[in-house]
Amino acid sequence: MLITSTDNDKIKEYSKLKERKYRDQTGEFLIEGPHLIAEAYRAGIVKELILEQDAVLPLNAPTIYVTKDIINKLSEVEAPTNVMALCRKMETKEDIGKKILILDGIQDPGNLGTIIRSSKAFHIDTIVLGENTVDVYNPKVIRATQGMIFHINIIKKEIEPFLLSLKQLDIPIYGTKVEYGKDFRTLKNKDKDTFALIMGNEGNGIRSEVLDLCDSYFYIEMAPDVESLNVGVAASIILYELDRRD
Amino acid sequence: MLITSTDNDKIKEYSKLKERKYRDQTGEFLIEGPHLIAEAYRAGIVKELILEQDAVLPLNAPTIYVTKDIINKLSEVEAPTNVMALCRKMETKEDIGKKILILDGIQDPGNLGTIIRSSKAFHIDTIVLGENTVDVYNPKVIRATQGMIFHINIIKKEIEPFLLSLKQLDIPIYGTKVEYGKDFRTLKNKDKDTFALIMGNEGNGIRSEVLDLCDSYFYIEMAPDVESLNVGVAASIILYELDRRD
Repeated sequence: MLITSTDNDKIKEYSKLKERKYRDQTGEFLIEGPHLIAEAYRAGIVKELILEQDAVLPLNAPTIYVTKDIINKLSEVEAPTNVMALCRKMETKEDIGKKILILDGIQDPGNLGTIIRSSKAFHIDTIVLGENTVDVYNPKVIRATQGMIFHINIIKKEIEPFLLSLKQLDIPIYGTKVEYGKDFRTLKNKDKDTFALIMGNEGNGIRSEVLDLCDSYFYIEMAPDVESLNVGVAASIILYELDRRD
Repeated sequence: MLITSTDNDKIKEYSKLKERKYRDQTGEFLIEGPHLIAEAYRAGIVKELILEQDAVLPLNAPTIYVTKDIINKLSEVEAPTNVMALCRKMETKEDIGKKILILDGIQDPGNLGTIIRSSKAFHIDTIVLGENTVDVYNPKVIRATQGMIFHINIIKKEIEPFLLSLKQLDIPIYGTKVEYGKDFRTLKNKDKDTFALIMGNEGNGIRSEVLDLCDSYFYIEMAPDVESLNVGVAASIILYELDRRD
């Protein structure tokens, strides 16, 4: 099927997916570029390929062909490629595993994407998004994950009741603070096999009522005249350290 | 002095500083927000404060007052604060120290800013920007550094001749590769006191002719189905590891 009008009903529907509201309503979202599409395909969530007339993608999925104008209308980047895809959101797994990362109010899409990418690299089983966290299907988030979003379990929870449920399971909860607390390097190997690590908002860190529910507090040692690291960097360094075995 | 017209000559000159060409010509750049201005002031590079009429900043510097329209014209963010400053570029130090980070073609302003911030946190003495690296005075870079850009020595060099000069000084050159190479954790304490670490471009890594000049190659161990980390994250983890003493 070739669609040539940007006023086509299907294209108008797809265009609405730029807004979180419509992504939430439909359970669908758009991605662009061959690399992301390949990763989504590998995860089995591609519903339809949206290809510019002359584009070729050797994937077995329903396909519509469109004009460059339509790609430009659907795309969220300045210089779009000629391939996009409609995807359905990932299914979430009930089994959250033993290595859990909890995000309390991450607001910047690039930071969330980076954290998801690093979580996959350092063997996190489940990422828990608290209230006030940016939409994980925001296109900027997806781009920053480099497709790793499609290969890790991501769930949404209200953080406080979720932490109480973790306590029932005897999963230790690690909080992060810019200062005080213990150096992460003091963690023993056995403390790295099962944990829930919490990272907080870019400006304000972890909310105090959430900090109160942590079992222990850690920080990253750094030069004294530096206030803090970027939260994506801080999370990644800690995940790297928790993945390290002495 | 109160300026009320966006057509004022001074304001028109300042507005040009959004372009790299004019920053290079004048050696000046604009910053916004109280936090960045405080850091620039601490570094002694604020030439003039640009305050909205009702704004107060308790700093001892020449000041002009302007309207909200002028702030909006000069600002590069969606929701500007009411304080900006004209700064002169940092002076560079001839003495590059013993811990050097070399960037070969970092293109994303956020990545460069994050790397500068982490470099300060983990005791890098000098950052060397190779050809094809994004302008360090790009406003997005400066924001992402959280002001740390004003407190670290940053110089521009052609990388290949610079590496040859490092070899004369017997400074070991560490290259990074996504795979192969040694794990950074194998480095001894004595190998962490003097070094030049090279990080490469987001998409392509370090250019092969630059890689050829490295003395040893390292990588970060991670899950096998993850291709790579964000370069700002990778640089930060390595700097963290190089700052660590066993």
